[in-house]
Amino acid sequence: MKTVIVGGVAGGMSAATRLRRLDEDAQIVVFERGAYVSYANCGLPYYVGGVIRDRDALLLQTPESLAARFRLDVRVEHEVTGIDADGRTVTVLDRTTGATSTETYDELILAVGASARTGGGGIPSRTLRTVDDVDAIDALIAGAGEAPHALVVGGGFIGLEAVENLVRRGVRTTLVQRGAHILSPLDSEMASPVDAELRRHGVDVRTSTTIARIDDGVVRLDDGTRLQPDFLVDAAGVVPNVDLALLAGVPLGPTGGIAVDAQGRTGIPHISAVGDGVEKIDALSGAESLVTMAGLANRHGRSVADVLAGRHESHTPALGTSIVKVFDVVAAKTGWSERELVAAGRAHRVIHTHPASHATYYPGAQTMSMKLLVDPATDAILGAQVVGGEGVDKRIDVIAVAMAGGISASGLSRLELAYAPQFGSAKDPVNQLGYVADNLRTGTTRAIQWHELDAAQDAGATVLDVRSPAEHAAGGIPGAVNIPVDELRDRLTEIPDGPVVVHCAVGQRGHTAARILSQRGFDVVNLDGGYRTWVAGAAAAGRAPQASRAAA
Amino acid sequence: MKTVIVGGVAGGMSAATRLRRLDEDAQIVVFERGAYVSYANCGLPYYVGGVIRDRDALLLQTPESLAARFRLDVRVEHEVTGIDADGRTVTVLDRTTGATSTETYDELILAVGASARTGGGGIPSRTLRTVDDVDAIDALIAGAGEAPHALVVGGGFIGLEAVENLVRRGVRTTLVQRGAHILSPLDSEMASPVDAELRRHGVDVRTSTTIARIDDGVVRLDDGTRLQPDFLVDAAGVVPNVDLALLAGVPLGPTGGIAVDAQGRTGIPHISAVGDGVEKIDALSGAESLVTMAGLANRHGRSVADVLAGRHESHTPALGTSIVKVFDVVAAKTGWSERELVAAGRAHRVIHTHPASHATYYPGAQTMSMKLLVDPATDAILGAQVVGGEGVDKRIDVIAVAMAGGISASGLSRLELAYAPQFGSAKDPVNQLGYVADNLRTGTTRAIQWHELDAAQDAGATVLDVRSPAEHAAGGIPGAVNIPVDELRDRLTEIPDGPVVVHCAVGQRGHTAARILSQRGFDVVNLDGGYRTWVAGAAAAGRAPQASRAAA
Repeated sequence: MKTVIVGGVAGGMSAATRLRRLDEDAQIVVFERGAYVSYANCGLPYYVGGVIRDRDALLLQTPESLAARFRLDVRVEHEVTGIDADGRTVTVLDRTTGATSTETYDELILAVGASARTGGGGIPSRTLRTVDDVDAIDALIAGAGEAPHALVVGGGFIGLEAVENLVRRGVRTTLVQRGAHILSPLDSEMASPVDAELRRHGVDVRTSTTIARIDDGVVRLDDGTRLQPDFLVDAAGVVPNVDLALLAGVPLGPTGGIAVDAQGRTGIPHISAVGDGVEKIDALSGAESLVTMAGLANRHGRSVADVLAGRHESHTPALGTSIVKVFDVVAAKTGWSERELVAAGRAHRVIHTHPASHATYYPGAQTMSMKLLVDPATDAILGAQVVGGEGVDKRIDVIAVAMAGGISASGLSRLELAYAPQFGSAKDPVNQLGYVADNLRTGTTRAIQWHELDAAQDAGATVLDVRSPAEHAAGGIPGAVNIPVDELRDRLTEIPDGPVVVHCAVGQRGHTAARILSQRGFDVVNLDGGYRTWVAGAAAAGRAPQASRAAA
Repeated sequence: MKTVIVGGVAGGMSAATRLRRLDEDAQIVVFERGAYVSYANCGLPYYVGGVIRDRDALLLQTPESLAARFRLDVRVEHEVTGIDADGRTVTVLDRTTGATSTETYDELILAVGASARTGGGGIPSRTLRTVDDVDAIDALIAGAGEAPHALVVGGGFIGLEAVENLVRRGVRTTLVQRGAHILSPLDSEMASPVDAELRRHGVDVRTSTTIARIDDGVVRLDDGTRLQPDFLVDAAGVVPNVDLALLAGVPLGPTGGIAVDAQGRTGIPHISAVGDGVEKIDALSGAESLVTMAGLANRHGRSVADVLAGRHESHTPALGTSIVKVFDVVAAKTGWSERELVAAGRAHRVIHTHPASHATYYPGAQTMSMKLLVDPATDAILGAQVVGGEGVDKRIDVIAVAMAGGISASGLSRLELAYAPQFGSAKDPVNQLGYVADNLRTGTTRAIQWHELDAAQDAGATVLDVRSPAEHAAGGIPGAVNIPVDELRDRLTEIPDGPVVVHCAVGQRGHTAARILSQRGFDVVNLDGGYRTWVAGAAAAGRAPQASRAAA
């Protein structure tokens, strides 16, 4: 059997090597348009920034090494320009010679990836997707003189990694983000610490704006700002590379990506597809979605090889678990965000916590912010976001695995996680999320969200700050009355009639206070995530709360 | 309702505070024999070592703070000496005055913990379980002169933490371990890197021996060694504190711990029990077992409060997830070890891997060693061990949650874990374990274990080292033939007839080689975990492999 694979990076090369391990006698030809195969594309920003100094470290394999180990016929700088699906041939352009040839196949795997959505215009502009891009950006920095200025378009994962590494290289950097906040997969209050971290490092962050036009080296944003960057890094998102698929009549799906079944087969016989160019099935909705993750590309490449070798393999629906580190802040997500749930009209319960990354009595603990989204009818976990430093990666993985295993939100409290003081707490942050979920599920506590507070106050609710007077004085919610939780039982008469919203710093003392008050007949809710979440939300909404820096 | 709780640390205090949150009107009395409540017992070793400098950091709560926040009646230095289960009273000794009194209860919760198994004799000896112990050890170090020498008995989690912190304090330390290797919850080859780390820090590690007798300040081990330590730290394990329970006629279980049902009720009406003194149900066998983990104590304390407040709560069976950091090495475990499975006669499949903690192209990746134990009939995960540095805690938690969620060993390959190069790989180490499991499950590869190699060689198998000649020369398995995997297809005729065991450094190239050979008709197995696991196993068995230091 002869398999031709178009694209030699993550998904394509996983398919190629797995296919060889399963079949010594298969003929396997890989065409790669670029000069490199199987390179570490997730490392490219860090090579720009000098974190990765050894260029060879990025180049995991070469055509020669793949021939030796796996007897793969890898042809770089060869672009597949056409497919004859009936005749089972591809047309191949040798980019070094300009010669065109035809290659037959028994099975074809499209692993063509995705490309940046737009280019610049009138100003040097590069994406950050390939080794060539990195070399080009290097040259742009070198050519920009003493005080280089870069404009990064797009505040998603790659855009933020680009920003961090440009700053690391001493490049003054402006970030333009079309959406209301950076890191649009996250909700605004969860992205807020990342935004603050960028500004702390001198990044000029501009949200809710986009490039209106570029003339004579001057970039005009649609808010009227004029910028004169030396160059532009385009990270405004990607679109699947579907041109080749369309030539072969391969059907696209509703998202515009290549449609495949659970075995990676396209609608055309003997053509499979994997990677960023292909639609995934969303684990929550069961609908088609575009999830461009290296892990999925690799896994699906391997699966497709299994299928072609006659094995039973199916893709698992995707949660879209993802993570990014921006200077000292780590932000991660799995499943759906609150915004996505709202947009889909899907009922959900929201939980914010701000636990320590490990036992506070052991040095070095860092505060993280967690958000859990729960189906109120079934207690199923719909999504999670974690932002902080140490241990963010662990907690998002734990929750992602819990989702994969069908563990309920309350069930997080019963997970047995490894505890020594360097690594967690006897009640791990994930367990604590489960306890909060259980308290909400059973009605033991009721909560409102930071963005619901204004309406509650307008409706006459008293906001009761149960923190210490010192904490209250350092920064609080306008109009809040301060009675520390430890004095609450003795000062019940001071609380005005009507509904009460209690809050503390993070929600925990608020929960205790809400329990006290509800058992004494008060109509009380706890402000979810406490003052800290409220501050983050207010900051994201562009409202600077009083003395928020001191308290946050 | 009046609830009396005996024991004011992890389980007892979790029960007390939860009970208050559920019931403002409950009367809650906590008796604690010691002078402190709710202290961070898992932090005690680090206070000895000076890592935790602030004593107050260990003392999370005081009777006063608990009275203010939770209206708890906490009485320290009060020891419950008797229980009248029919009359529902306890007898209480005030250790400061010597006075005895009687306290009634509606519900009694025993949270009495466990105590060290033995004492010293003829030499100052302390356990490391309480704040008093820490103060005593401090005084012993101070009183031991210029070059203090300590003998730690027991190489379990607390023993190792004691050793590390004594060394940190400049105390020359000998560790005596009755078993054949330290960290007996782990298998020998997995504990081996921890043993090496102790020796690297100058610890005198003595395994398979125990104290025969102590005379005139001289410790004689049963191997004839004589030692003259200044003092002894007893960490030889704990036994449940059951004396009080027995006085009340509370039945014990088969392990000697207090027997409780899934709601924490003992066999005597109105008496519940939680914590280290109580039997847990093992998640794999369903049998009673003693698992002394702070996390379980805390969680079960909370559950028992829920039950007493009329809620439906059940304890989840225990996996025994645990972790310890010893200098720069982290070792963690969940579920059963190979030794436990062998002892129980339970069929199992073993997988060893040695992946990098994060993408190797990004600086700072550390090699870890992983072990997965799998039910060959069902593909269920039976247990896991991970040893290394960065990211060990994450991987053991991910596997523990996968077990809790019923995810199969092969299913680990499909987990969507967060990937950025600082945190993992596109195929995370846990995914890789799943791929190996799947290859074994489907018969795609066959493997043998390090301890089976001798027998295979004796039976005439050829050991084929498929690493590079340089790796082979730096250290190898005696008798192995070296043909690098990349040359294997061209040198098949050099392989002797008969069965073949291939090996590489960690098992990955070996897998590729085994696939090549099996498809060419060879009777081939891959050495699981490669040379690295074999070296660790040989070291654990007391056999120094040739040039192993260079290669390991």
